[in-house]
Amino acid sequence: MNGPVTDNARLLERRYRLLGAGAPLFYDEPVHIVKGEGVWLYDADGKKYLDVYNNVPNVGHCHPHVVEALYKQSQTLNVHTRYLHELVLEYAERLTGLHDDPLAMAFIVCTGSEANEIALRMARRHTGKQGIICTNHTYHGNTAAVDELSSIFHNGKAPGPNVKTVPFPETYRPLNGLAGETLADACAGEVKQAIDEFEAEGIGFAGMLICSIFANEGLPDVPHGYMEKAMGHVREAGGLYIADEVQGGFARTGKRMWGYQTSGVTPDIATMGKPMGNGHPVGGVVARADLVNEFREHVMYFNTFGGNPVQCAVGMAVLDVLERENLQENALTVGNYTMQGLWKLQDKYDLIGDVRGHGLFIGVELVTDREKKTAAAEETRLIVNRMKDRGVLLSNIGVYGNVLKMRPPLPFSKDNADLLLSTLDDVLATV
Amino acid sequence: MNGPVTDNARLLERRYRLLGAGAPLFYDEPVHIVKGEGVWLYDADGKKYLDVYNNVPNVGHCHPHVVEALYKQSQTLNVHTRYLHELVLEYAERLTGLHDDPLAMAFIVCTGSEANEIALRMARRHTGKQGIICTNHTYHGNTAAVDELSSIFHNGKAPGPNVKTVPFPETYRPLNGLAGETLADACAGEVKQAIDEFEAEGIGFAGMLICSIFANEGLPDVPHGYMEKAMGHVREAGGLYIADEVQGGFARTGKRMWGYQTSGVTPDIATMGKPMGNGHPVGGVVARADLVNEFREHVMYFNTFGGNPVQCAVGMAVLDVLERENLQENALTVGNYTMQGLWKLQDKYDLIGDVRGHGLFIGVELVTDREKKTAAAEETRLIVNRMKDRGVLLSNIGVYGNVLKMRPPLPFSKDNADLLLSTLDDVLATV
Repeated sequence: MNGPVTDNARLLERRYRLLGAGAPLFYDEPVHIVKGEGVWLYDADGKKYLDVYNNVPNVGHCHPHVVEALYKQSQTLNVHTRYLHELVLEYAERLTGLHDDPLAMAFIVCTGSEANEIALRMARRHTGKQGIICTNHTYHGNTAAVDELSSIFHNGKAPGPNVKTVPFPETYRPLNGLAGETLADACAGEVKQAIDEFEAEGIGFAGMLICSIFANEGLPDVPHGYMEKAMGHVREAGGLYIADEVQGGFARTGKRMWGYQTSGVTPDIATMGKPMGNGHPVGGVVARADLVNEFREHVMYFNTFGGNPVQCAVGMAVLDVLERENLQENALTVGNYTMQGLWKLQDKYDLIGDVRGHGLFIGVELVTDREKKTAAAEETRLIVNRMKDRGVLLSNIGVYGNVLKMRPPLPFSKDNADLLLSTLDDVLATV
Repeated sequence: MNGPVTDNARLLERRYRLLGAGAPLFYDEPVHIVKGEGVWLYDADGKKYLDVYNNVPNVGHCHPHVVEALYKQSQTLNVHTRYLHELVLEYAERLTGLHDDPLAMAFIVCTGSEANEIALRMARRHTGKQGIICTNHTYHGNTAAVDELSSIFHNGKAPGPNVKTVPFPETYRPLNGLAGETLADACAGEVKQAIDEFEAEGIGFAGMLICSIFANEGLPDVPHGYMEKAMGHVREAGGLYIADEVQGGFARTGKRMWGYQTSGVTPDIATMGKPMGNGHPVGGVVARADLVNEFREHVMYFNTFGGNPVQCAVGMAVLDVLERENLQENALTVGNYTMQGLWKLQDKYDLIGDVRGHGLFIGVELVTDREKKTAAAEETRLIVNRMKDRGVLLSNIGVYGNVLKMRPPLPFSKDNADLLLSTLDDVLATV
C-alpha cells in the first residue's frame, strides 16, 4: 500500500503531464480530497477537514435533497430550452422573485463567466458604448471579455482601452488617508473620472461591473454612502450598474439574499454563479425586462445546457434547502459569532490587523505592524498551510494576499466556528 | 383539465414574461417535452417523438449508466480541481488517449463556448497575433470572443478587425464553378489571402478555427485535398489549426472518433462540448503539450466547475457507453443505411437536391430546381414542422436554411431509420 506522500507524488506527476504544471492547486503540499459531507471534506487517508473555504457547496457538500433532485430529473429529461418546459419557468420565476423589483427577467447559463459575458454584451449593446469600469483588484471570470476585467491575475499589466479600473473603496487603507463622507466622495470621484475619460477618449461609457461585497478585494468595509454616490455617477452618465453575485449571493451575507442588498442600491443587472447549483454547473443573469428584451431582439443568444430541466431542478433544490434549513439566518448568527471570536483573537494577537465581513464571509487581515498596516503575506501563507495540516481548510485574498478568507458552506455551526477559532488560536501561537 | 393548446399558450406567456420573447424556440408551434428515453422524447400529452435532432444526449436520453455515474459521484464529492483527485486525471488520460498523438494535454471546462475561448486565447498568446480565420457561415458559441466568429447569426454584418471569414469549402455549389483539385486550390487560396491581409494590416495571423465537418455550413462534401492545402497555408504562416468537435466529435461520424480524423489533418487544438456529458455541462480542450504549458505559464486559468469529479465521472460513463454499445460502428452502419434510404427518396422526389453527411450526421438539401439549385427554404420549414406533427423531430441548417439536419442520439437503429424514412416519404408527398 502506498502512503499519502507517494500517492500525492504520483498524482502530481500525472497532473503535470495531463493538465500542465500551471494548473492551479491549493497549499504548499496539496490535499487529495475524496469525499465531502456537509461542512466536512475527507482525504484519501480518511483525515477529516473542516471546510471553511468552499462557497460552491453552499448548502453543504453532497446535500441529499440536491443530489436526489439531480438524480430524479436526470432520469426523466435533460434537454435544451428550445422545447417548452415548466421547470425553467418555475426556476426563473422563483429566482427573479428573490431579487429586487426591476430585475424581472432571467437567463440561465452554466457558469459565472458566461453570466458576466451576457451582462457585458447587454450593457455594451444597450448603451452603444464600450467602456467598462471595474475595480483594481478583482476577478470576474475566465473568458477573454471578462478576463480583461480580472486585474487580480494581470500582474499590474494595464487592461485594454475598453476597461478602466478604479481603486476599490475601503476604510482600512483609505484613499489619500481620507475618512467618512470625504472618503466616499473621493472614491466615487474616481468612478466619475474614469467615466469622463472614457467619454473624452470617444470610447464612451457602458457600465460598472463590481462584486457587490468586493470579495477578491479583501472584503473591505466600504465608506458609508459610497455605493449611492458611485452609482449616481454611473447612472447620470447613462451607464448600467452590474452586480456580480457569484460570491456575495445566495444568502451568504446573512443579512439579505444578495450582496447588493447590503448597500441598498439595486443594480440594473445581477450575475450569479458558484453557489447556484451547489456544485452543478449553473450560472444566471437577472436584469431589467427592457434590457433583456432589447438584447433578445438583436442577439440570437442560445446556451446549449443553460436552463435545461436538470439545472433548474438542482437550482430549485438549492433554494429549497436555503429556506427549509434557515441558512440565511444561520449565516448571520454563526457569522456574527465567528466574528466575535475573531475579535477576541485580535485582542490576543497583534498580527490580526482587521476583522471584517458579512455573515459567513469573513476576512482577517494580518499585519506585522498595526500602525503602518504592513501586510504579513508570508505569515498568512504559513497560517493557511498550518491550518490545513491541522484539518481546517481556508485560503487568502486581498491585494497583498494577507487576508485570511473564511467562506464555509452555510450549514456551518457554532461548534464548527469553535473548532475554527481554537485551531486558529493554536496556529497563531506558532507564528 | 387543460388541453395541450391552452397549456402551451400558458407556458409561452410565462416564458415571454420571464425569459423574453426572443429566447429561441423550435417549430411554428413549439412542443412541450417532459420525458426522454433512448432515441425517444415524450410530450405532456404522452405523444412520442423520434429524436432525429439531438446530439447532446449522444448515447441516448437519460442513459442509465451515465445517470448512475452522475448520482454516485454526486453523493460522494463534487468540488473544484485545486485539490488533487484521481478522476480528472483518469478522464484527461482517456480523452487525450482517444485523440491523435500530439494532442496530449487537456482542459476540462463546462461548455463548448468556454472551450473555444481557451483555444482562441491560447492561439493568440502563442503567436502574439490577433487574426482568426473562420468560415462565412458558422457558429462557435455565445461569448463575445467566439460570437465574433459566429457569422450564422450576424445577418451579414462584418466581423471586427481581428476576424476574417472565408467561403466554406463545398462541391455542391462550388466556388466560381470550379471542380476537383482546382476547386480545392481556390478554396484554400481564400485562406491564404485572408492570412496575407491580416499580415498586411499589421494584425497578424493567429489561427483558423473550423468545425471539422462544417456542420452549420450544411455538412458540405469538401473538395478533395482542401484540408491539407488550407492547413498547409495556416501552418506555413505560423498559425494554429483549431478543430471544433462540438458537433463532429464523440463517434458521430461513424468512421472515426473525431471529425478532424475524417480529413486526415490533425489540429493543434481540438475543442469539445455538447455530447461530452450527454447533457451534463461538460466541455473540453485537448492540445499540444507545448501550447498548454506555454498558456499555463502566463495565464492563471481556473474554471470553478471544470474538471470536478462529477463532470469527470459523467464524461467517463459516456465513453464507457460509446465503447460497450459499439456506438461508433452503429453510427456508421445505420448512418449508411439511412443515407441509402434517402438516396431512394431523392430518386422519387425532385425536391431533394443533395444527400450528404458522415455517419449519423446527415444533411438533405432541398431545392425547387435541381439544375439551378434554387433553395427550397419555405418547403424545408414546412417539412420540419410536418415531421414534428407526425412525431419525428429534426431541424434545418445551411446558408439558405434549406438543409434538413439529421443528428440523432447514436443508439439510433435501422428500425428508427425506417420510421424516419417512411415519415419523410409521407411528408414529402404533401409538399
